[in-house]
Amino acid sequence: MTTRIDPQDVPGRPCSLSAALQIVGDRWALPAIREVMLGNHRFRQIARNTGAPTDRLAARLKALVESGILERRPLPDDARYSGYYLTAAGRDLGAITRELIGWGDRWVVTDPPSRIRHRDHELVAHTVCKTCGEQVHGKDVHRDELTPGWNQSGSLESPEM
Amino acid sequence: MTTRIDPQDVPGRPCSLSAALQIVGDRWALPAIREVMLGNHRFRQIARNTGAPTDRLAARLKALVESGILERRPLPDDARYSGYYLTAAGRDLGAITRELIGWGDRWVVTDPPSRIRHRDHELVAHTVCKTCGEQVHGKDVHRDELTPGWNQSGSLESPEM
Repeated sequence: MTTRIDPQDVPGRPCSLSAALQIVGDRWALPAIREVMLGNHRFRQIARNTGAPTDRLAARLKALVESGILERRPLPDDARYSGYYLTAAGRDLGAITRELIGWGDRWVVTDPPSRIRHRDHELVAHTVCKTCGEQVHGKDVHRDELTPGWNQSGSLESPEM
Repeated sequence: MTTRIDPQDVPGRPCSLSAALQIVGDRWALPAIREVMLGNHRFRQIARNTGAPTDRLAARLKALVESGILERRPLPDDARYSGYYLTAAGRDLGAITRELIGWGDRWVVTDPPSRIRHRDHELVAHTVCKTCGEQVHGKDVHRDELTPGWNQSGSLESPEM
């Protein structure tokens, strides 16, 4: 990120989820990033494959470049034009897009329109905790607030009415 | 989902990412789900802890109930009122919210405002492929299109101009 966000400045609970959504929470951001991940670097490819209105897409890609998620570089096959490429922060969105695709496959669509492959076999992803080596289940995961004045229930300074 | 989405009906590439974002891609959807995950089931708790405008939040929660992500049930401590609870599809969003928090911690915020704990130790999550048992790296993951007429580059029927 060129300028990092102070978590106290997001609305409500100081949280990296809200901060992340300020960067990639727009309707067209993750579909555009998906296209760049698939190797589609030209504006017109991204526009066609996301279905985004070109004016909104142009504004969103500009914001993603300014945030340090995408960068513009000359296209290898035609250096007169530049394309959109992922930065390290952008490449690090791979797990999020895969999780959203998996959730959509399980709960939203009539039939999965794609299959995610790991090398030569189907990817069956599960999350493991490196500290203990065990598979992670939601019931064993807890969030500790590091911001003074906040706990799970909310702000201690303006408690629920 | 009460009514599943035909992936051919999303804009651009038929994709479960775009379909998933039609349900949870709104600015306030995932922060609201985060609050319910943290045990905050009342409307006023969710409003305060997300910072969402109450009219937009009410519309979004209604849509999440209609989509089958949340359900309303009487509050255990005051059965005159109902609160918002996660369905199985909503609970299955846990990994996505954790991934977004981790990405925000790494790339967006000045200092992480929370820590995710796995039982009694810090969660250091990594993704493993159940099929082969190995850790998953983005470079080994590929997407196969199952929709006739589409490949990685886009639609074969309306090729790039």
